[in-house]
Amino acid sequence: MDSLEEKTLHVESLYEGRIITLKRHRVRLPNGQESWREVVEHPGAVAVLPVLADGRLLLIRQYRKAVEEVLIEVPAGKLEAGEAPEVAVRRELWEETGLVAERLEFLFSFYTSPGFANEKIFLYLAWVGNSDVSQPPGLDADEFVQPLRLTLEEGLHWVADGRIHDAKTILALQALQMMRQK
Amino acid sequence: MDSLEEKTLHVESLYEGRIITLKRHRVRLPNGQESWREVVEHPGAVAVLPVLADGRLLLIRQYRKAVEEVLIEVPAGKLEAGEAPEVAVRRELWEETGLVAERLEFLFSFYTSPGFANEKIFLYLAWVGNSDVSQPPGLDADEFVQPLRLTLEEGLHWVADGRIHDAKTILALQALQMMRQK
Repeated sequence: MDSLEEKTLHVESLYEGRIITLKRHRVRLPNGQESWREVVEHPGAVAVLPVLADGRLLLIRQYRKAVEEVLIEVPAGKLEAGEAPEVAVRRELWEETGLVAERLEFLFSFYTSPGFANEKIFLYLAWVGNSDVSQPPGLDADEFVQPLRLTLEEGLHWVADGRIHDAKTILALQALQMMRQK
Repeated sequence: MDSLEEKTLHVESLYEGRIITLKRHRVRLPNGQESWREVVEHPGAVAVLPVLADGRLLLIRQYRKAVEEVLIEVPAGKLEAGEAPEVAVRRELWEETGLVAERLEFLFSFYTSPGFANEKIFLYLAWVGNSDVSQPPGLDADEFVQPLRLTLEEGLHWVADGRIHDAKTILALQALQMMRQK
């Protein structure tokens, strides 16, 4: 047992939603005192940076109600129950862009907001041969996205000037840059 | 107006907590249909990668109830109401590590989980002269952390092998590596 661990004494379920669940844990702190922790439960997700045959990248523009803004992001989506990340990433890539990965490379997985949420994202690079992206073939009924092609250099420039400000997307762009610099 | 935008028709407040607030928006989709969006509101945060005089980095180990795990992270903390990010980052650095930044460099800001939360993190590098990290001088009553010194090479290795899996921490390590490779 790690001395930093906080043992849950009891859990209160506050909200069960479509995507997230909210719970509140009464915990025993390492010093013996008690406190509360708010926890958002999320099914986890995959995200993938597609590299097209001409070397450019495919990102998507998507409105995010939580931040009231259209964000530029790598294609991504929630894991379905029991679904392997590599299966989910091929499914989401096709649904959101119509692209088929010739080769996938797993980069790493990460927690997005461990201070209050358990969302974990599995991040991939995908090399795709075709790049005829017209109408995304498999979006959910309430999902609307626009494709955007740009070079890695443009992508990194857009991170520096603030036009790209989504964590998983910056992680993927920086990872690709580090691979190219090796 | 962007054609991707989703207009909020009304908002239901589901939970007001210590750190987060949960709301549910009824929205008008771009195609005229209606749907629901769950939104977790968060005050925003700062995170900082401290570079010590000997070139090593200071990270911290902290138990995160949301993921039931001790994570290795850059020092970070919530923005207080009306607080400028640069003020918050100096405060959090001192509170969690006892370090004082001789120079701060802003890297970029990002949303951690824009699919369901509005948390935005402002990410910095800090060059610190002293490195006498003993007991963190200003932790909250329910906050427990352990300092950890490692080189950038070790940090990147720990990302690759999965020992470091926190988004803001990986973003900071990648950004420092890209600066050193320039």
